[in-house]
Amino acid sequence: MSLVCLEDFKAYARQQLSKSSWDFIEGEADEGITRSDNIAAFKRIHLRPRYLRDVSKVDTRTTIQGQEISAPICISPSAFHSVAWPDGERSTARAAQEVNICYITSTYTSCTLEDIVAAAPGGLRWFQLYVQPDWELNKRLVQRVEALGFKALVITVDAPVIGNRRQNMRNQLNLEENIMLKDLRSPEERNSTITAPTSLPSPSFCWDDLSMFQTMTRLPIILKGILTKEDAELAVKHNVQGIYVSNHGGRQLDGVPASGEYGVKEVLNILKAELHTSMALSGCQSVAEISPDLIQFSRL
Amino acid sequence: MSLVCLEDFKAYARQQLSKSSWDFIEGEADEGITRSDNIAAFKRIHLRPRYLRDVSKVDTRTTIQGQEISAPICISPSAFHSVAWPDGERSTARAAQEVNICYITSTYTSCTLEDIVAAAPGGLRWFQLYVQPDWELNKRLVQRVEALGFKALVITVDAPVIGNRRQNMRNQLNLEENIMLKDLRSPEERNSTITAPTSLPSPSFCWDDLSMFQTMTRLPIILKGILTKEDAELAVKHNVQGIYVSNHGGRQLDGVPASGEYGVKEVLNILKAELHTSMALSGCQSVAEISPDLIQFSRL
Amino acid sequence: MSLVCLEDFKAYARQQLSKSSWDFIEGEADEGITRSDNIAAFKRIHLRPRYLRDVSKVDTRTTIQGQEISAPICISPSAFHSVAWPDGERSTARAAQEVNICYITSTYTSCTLEDIVAAAPGGLRWFQLYVQPDWELNKRLVQRVEALGFKALVITVDAPVIGNRRQNMRNQLNLEENIMLKDLRSPEERNSTITAPTSLPSPSFCWDDLSMFQTMTRLPIILKGILTKEDAELAVKHNVQGIYVSNHGGRQLDGVPASGEYGVKEVLNILKAELHTSMALSGCQSVAEISPDLIQFSRL
Amino acid sequence: MSLVCLEDFKAYARQQLSKSSWDFIEGEADEGITRSDNIAAFKRIHLRPRYLRDVSKVDTRTTIQGQEISAPICISPSAFHSVAWPDGERSTARAAQEVNICYITSTYTSCTLEDIVAAAPGGLRWFQLYVQPDWELNKRLVQRVEALGFKALVITVDAPVIGNRRQNMRNQLNLEENIMLKDLRSPEERNSTITAPTSLPSPSFCWDDLSMFQTMTRLPIILKGILTKEDAELAVKHNVQGIYVSNHGGRQLDGVPASGEYGVKEVLNILKAELHTSMALSGCQSVAEISPDLIQFSRL
Repeated sequence: MSLVCLEDFKAYARQQLSKSSWDFIEGEADEGITRSDNIAAFKRIHLRPRYLRDVSKVDTRTTIQGQEISAPICISPSAFHSVAWPDGERSTARAAQEVNICYITSTYTSCTLEDIVAAAPGGLRWFQLYVQPDWELNKRLVQRVEALGFKALVITVDAPVIGNRRQNMRNQLNLEENIMLKDLRSPEERNSTITAPTSLPSPSFCWDDLSMFQTMTRLPIILKGILTKEDAELAVKHNVQGIYVSNHGGRQLDGVPASGEYGVKEVLNILKAELHTSMALSGCQSVAEISPDLIQFSRL
Repeated sequence: MSLVCLEDFKAYARQQLSKSSWDFIEGEADEGITRSDNIAAFKRIHLRPRYLRDVSKVDTRTTIQGQEISAPICISPSAFHSVAWPDGERSTARAAQEVNICYITSTYTSCTLEDIVAAAPGGLRWFQLYVQPDWELNKRLVQRVEALGFKALVITVDAPVIGNRRQNMRNQLNLEENIMLKDLRSPEERNSTITAPTSLPSPSFCWDDLSMFQTMTRLPIILKGILTKEDAELAVKHNVQGIYVSNHGGRQLDGVPASGEYGVKEVLNILKAELHTSMALSGCQSVAEISPDLIQFSRL
Repeated sequence: MSLVCLEDFKAYARQQLSKSSWDFIEGEADEGITRSDNIAAFKRIHLRPRYLRDVSKVDTRTTIQGQEISAPICISPSAFHSVAWPDGERSTARAAQEVNICYITSTYTSCTLEDIVAAAPGGLRWFQLYVQPDWELNKRLVQRVEALGFKALVITVDAPVIGNRRQNMRNQLNLEENIMLKDLRSPEERNSTITAPTSLPSPSFCWDDLSMFQTMTRLPIILKGILTKEDAELAVKHNVQGIYVSNHGGRQLDGVPASGEYGVKEVLNILKAELHTSMALSGCQSVAEISPDLIQFSRL
Repeated sequence: MSLVCLEDFKAYARQQLSKSSWDFIEGEADEGITRSDNIAAFKRIHLRPRYLRDVSKVDTRTTIQGQEISAPICISPSAFHSVAWPDGERSTARAAQEVNICYITSTYTSCTLEDIVAAAPGGLRWFQLYVQPDWELNKRLVQRVEALGFKALVITVDAPVIGNRRQNMRNQLNLEENIMLKDLRSPEERNSTITAPTSLPSPSFCWDDLSMFQTMTRLPIILKGILTKEDAELAVKHNVQGIYVSNHGGRQLDGVPASGEYGVKEVLNILKAELHTSMALSGCQSVAEISPDLIQFSRL
């Protein structure tokens, strides 16, 4: 069967991967209610298409923190891509570079950041950080990331502790253990005698600590996971460059099957094609024309 | 089993047709959400029937753009009827003429417009046009349609590009290819040496181009696919004679099984009978009495 | 399995009856949407129970058009009870008399009205009338009913024509034919030479004809099937004694399995017991205390 | 399979227990609509988590009627724990004491109150009372409970009569009979010659009778089952110390499988851990910080 939409890729991946790998990727916290809510909320959004506009040329390009991308599509950060295919984040990086969109690399990668950069030197990448209790480690990590050419620092704020992922617990795939064993040091640092620090997110990180990051890097800072207007206002007050609204629920399937790299590229191209068609069918020539008027608010 | 409602005919057709033919007819764009929404929206409409009115005589006749029809039922335009039965649109035209309702003929017919008219010379027909990039072709087509006795021009505005129909992609039934190969010239033109132009809808057609049609024909112009009040207001401003509210979703099953002509007639008669019963049960003697008061708006 | 609720009786009846009998009893018009809506609407009603009230004595008795019944429960009119068991409406009448509630007898009974009265002479009964086109027949029928001791005339207004009941059409159980053959004359009249008139409901009966009934009987008149406030106001204006709000949908299962009489009585007793428990759990000592305050309107 | 959430424990219990025991524990009144509504209502509650707060120390402790507990979790009263495991309420008491939460003991226990207290002398316990028609019995029971060290009297107000529990009726497990046979006298009283009184809840208990309890004990009085603001206002007016909002529906699964005591403790620990995680993920350091602001009211 040909794979013509993301659901096809998802079904194919489920069939190819081992149960524990699938559960890790698909994994929902607790009963998966938030995730069903996410999907249901998407389906409730009705468009108000405008017609009889010239859509012979539709341009999906836009910019994100000053960098041009081919479409407003990013790869969300997710951990340990080698669970799905051996080449891990190297394939992800190559596919993202080829399609020219932004790849937000996770703190918890299967290969080193240096390997990822080497695999696709020209791609746009941001770095997603789980803040570490060890501030020296935070500093070395952020400065290393900036030196490697990442263009923004995405700080996850909605995971001060790890949520309950039942399938992982059932599969005895101890997420905390994997995360604690992840070595966040650079290849060079590993050759030194410093012991690898544990790498669980810090539960004490708070608004007052943000300035620490602002002094150690010139990268724009994005807070990932903000959900309330109160926190959004605090973000503005603390001079962050952006917020990333997300409920961390049902981590979108952005890493797929065994031919690795080709699949990622194919999925990204499907998303781009769907966006292109939707823009044409809604009467939008460019990303700038996509406005709230296109949404039928009364039905939300 | 006797076929007593449209669902019965649909089930029977599914059983008789090949999978690819069925998918083509039933075909929904993307995930079919809009189509499910259409059906759900119909089910949410609650009537407010009025009783103790004399309904011994119920008259379902009405007029449409000045022409009398036996009931406010039309056959929506759909492509390539020969996918369902060999005689294609000729059968559709004969059934519509016999029941005396309006048959909106698609741009993409299996047989020539001349054949359709010859099959049922006395029937009321409108012509649905996918605007072509070649304006000479548009003009020849519209004037030919007017000369053949079609009574209105229905211009589809919600398909500047072809939506994603996943089942067709899976069946390798390349819709674009079929459409591109469709020869929109008259039989006479084909005998001349002119090469058949491709026939994909024009993505650049817009409000300013409407006047071109108004100068080339005296037929009333109906815009099919308008969904927003903004576009409805623009239609009035551009002096079109009608709008056809539709989301193109879940193309209604109006072409059915293999005994072809008889089935179409039967389906139309069921629709008429259901309308007749519903009018009697709601206390309406004539189509003119069907008013918004019959709908329980608060529940929508 | 013991039968402890109405769903149990329904499941048992379905198992015992032939498919065509079951479909006739269960029969829904068209797609059964109204019926599902009825059930869903009931489930949306939330009670606001009041506690710490003395409910050691709960009295379910009430009056209906001046007659005392043991609980506000009536048997709705439904046609041809002999479809479910041989003794037909005679059993229904005996069970209703024993439980002391009101049995609304249908125009279309399997046995004569005289037989029904003889089976349970002391029971409270109303007569449901499908108005006939033959006014002489209407008059003879109403006066016969009054003479037989029926206490009210329930005129059905929502069936000027017969709705589409698909299962009956599929089972070739021609409802119209059965109804047309029903002989509405008294046993005596049948011995005379008058030909039995057909008995389909009159589609021309309207508000102006109501006074005809008011001159031919002193029985209170109830209009069954009113659904809009406009029609309710007209009913008041025309001096009818009551309206019976109903959408005729999903005719309640009031005729059940093969031991016939015992089953009906059992079902009525379950309903009475459920009412008694619900009144106690809501803090109501008598039917008069059941007020709109008990309903959580905001959730409807 | 490891048991990682309450649903796992529930599935395991269902598998281990006999059908009649399971139905007794799971038992819903009538059609279980209220219970489904309860679950659906819980799922509709959306949290508004606040981030970037120091949650390295989360304290789930709180007080209830002046007593400290390790988390705002109580064991709701439920009858006859020996249906699930031989040691009955003794195991429940020991587990509650170990986790340091409040165990509300039911009127209808499998073993004597003296046995329960002896099993876990240091645990916090309240006593749930179904008011008895025999006021002498009520008085002896309440004073005995106070003497045994229970810290509050929870009077159930929503069960003046027993609701219909269909599964129990089907299983011939006659709840009323069991309840009537329950001997509410102390071990000493049983040695006297007084006949055991029946023990069905009193249907005549009402607001005016409350003062009787207030004169016979100094324990705080909580009314369980209040559902309307009118009744809540009457409770304040009658000087009760608390109300326990509950619809008695779908009695939460608080008694589980055959290893008895260990299971209860495990379930309580899971609840505590889930609360701890939820507080951290919502930015709450202590129970006092859990405020209505955390709930997205507009979506309810």
